[in-house]
Amino acid sequence: MQFTSEQRLDGNLIEREFTLGDVPGILWTPAAVSASAPAPLILLGHPPLGLRGMYPRLVARARQAAADGFASATIELPGSGDRPRLPDVEQARAGMRRAIEAGEPVGDEIVDALVLPLVDRAVPEWRTALDSLLALPEIGGPVGYSGGVISIGIRLALVEPRIAAAVLFAGSFVPRAVFQDARQLTVPLHVLLQWDDEGNDRQASLDLFDAFGSEEKTLHANMGGHTGVPQFAGDAAAQFFTRHLR
Amino acid sequence: MQFTSEQRLDGNLIEREFTLGDVPGILWTPAAVSASAPAPLILLGHPPLGLRGMYPRLVARARQAAADGFASATIELPGSGDRPRLPDVEQARAGMRRAIEAGEPVGDEIVDALVLPLVDRAVPEWRTALDSLLALPEIGGPVGYSGGVISIGIRLALVEPRIAAAVLFAGSFVPRAVFQDARQLTVPLHVLLQWDDEGNDRQASLDLFDAFGSEEKTLHANMGGHTGVPQFAGDAAAQFFTRHLR
Repeated sequence: MQFTSEQRLDGNLIEREFTLGDVPGILWTPAAVSASAPAPLILLGHPPLGLRGMYPRLVARARQAAADGFASATIELPGSGDRPRLPDVEQARAGMRRAIEAGEPVGDEIVDALVLPLVDRAVPEWRTALDSLLALPEIGGPVGYSGGVISIGIRLALVEPRIAAAVLFAGSFVPRAVFQDARQLTVPLHVLLQWDDEGNDRQASLDLFDAFGSEEKTLHANMGGHTGVPQFAGDAAAQFFTRHLR
Repeated sequence: MQFTSEQRLDGNLIEREFTLGDVPGILWTPAAVSASAPAPLILLGHPPLGLRGMYPRLVARARQAAADGFASATIELPGSGDRPRLPDVEQARAGMRRAIEAGEPVGDEIVDALVLPLVDRAVPEWRTALDSLLALPEIGGPVGYSGGVISIGIRLALVEPRIAAAVLFAGSFVPRAVFQDARQLTVPLHVLLQWDDEGNDRQASLDLFDAFGSEEKTLHANMGGHTGVPQFAGDAAAQFFTRHLR
């Protein structure tokens, strides 16, 4: 892990950019954190739109995390931002777009082809990042995962025992294999569902919530479209992490 | 409104029993409350099992309300506790029990016969109680309604403009007329759903949530049966009232 920049954003937040091999990422730590009082860590997931475009929303989440005493970090997804495109995923995305424009259902094959390569590539990268992040003296456990592509969150929470709790953003384009992963999850889950999400099927999201194996799972459904999560729903997700990571 | 008893339950809670005509009720006020700083009020709904049997759960909710600076009050439901039985409702309840034991669906006619007489009688009583409670110098607005028979909560929130926000406990035995009321609601709603509620149909509860007309409505679904609402879900409901009543 190579740090490439460091700046103090405001009174309480230090932002450091880093690279992990070819993968760029960002680490945010509360200024008050030190090796003698390491902070728990929240991994900030995000959609495959590139870190640069997602930065305003990511830094807002990092500020909230820091206010609650947490470090937070994110890495670029495979095929996004400045990373090389993934031709197989791009082709599947075009197929999905064609299906939606033609008013046809998006078939399992398209979802598998679009999402599985992303999951298979991203999850090991998040785990490698976790190795490096937890080796820093100012960061301790436990670790939470929050948001982004729900299939990545599910698979990561299943295979990575250091993830102690996860906030997931309900989505309906979930490959069948990941749906099976969901049944095996055991960590506490806090699931956000936007009731009128224009990009996701509500019933499929409810079916996925039903499938999660975790004994503690909570669904918070709010009005509005995909990006309309109300402030109080973000606060509730932050309280979930405070309950489980502190 | 006649007060019949008064006791200080602990450092912060004063409990007064009262009668309103033939209707018994209980008022809880934080000890710190005075006429110069009146407290907002939460009406504590409950199932038709009698105030005496419900008392332990009601007083726990009153303690939470007082800790948040709210007065709270409840009244006995028609046909419950020491109040005269309602033969028509009892007959409908027997019909529902027969249907459930026979494994048959509970028809709309049975739901109407069971719930509508209760709604039609209870709602005016709650409004009368509200008149008397708000006339007390130590109680101010705004007013919240919380829990109990969801159809009573819906109708009360619709017809009573002094209700500023409501926490509703999802239920599926909702008369068609009340389902239509739900579409006309405008106050902020916080709906609790127990995912494996043995006494309610999940899909019907989700359909009712979908129908609520309120611009701000949130569904909090948690694992467990009817009475298994986790502590953190109660805390979230309390925060909803703090957001809307203070």
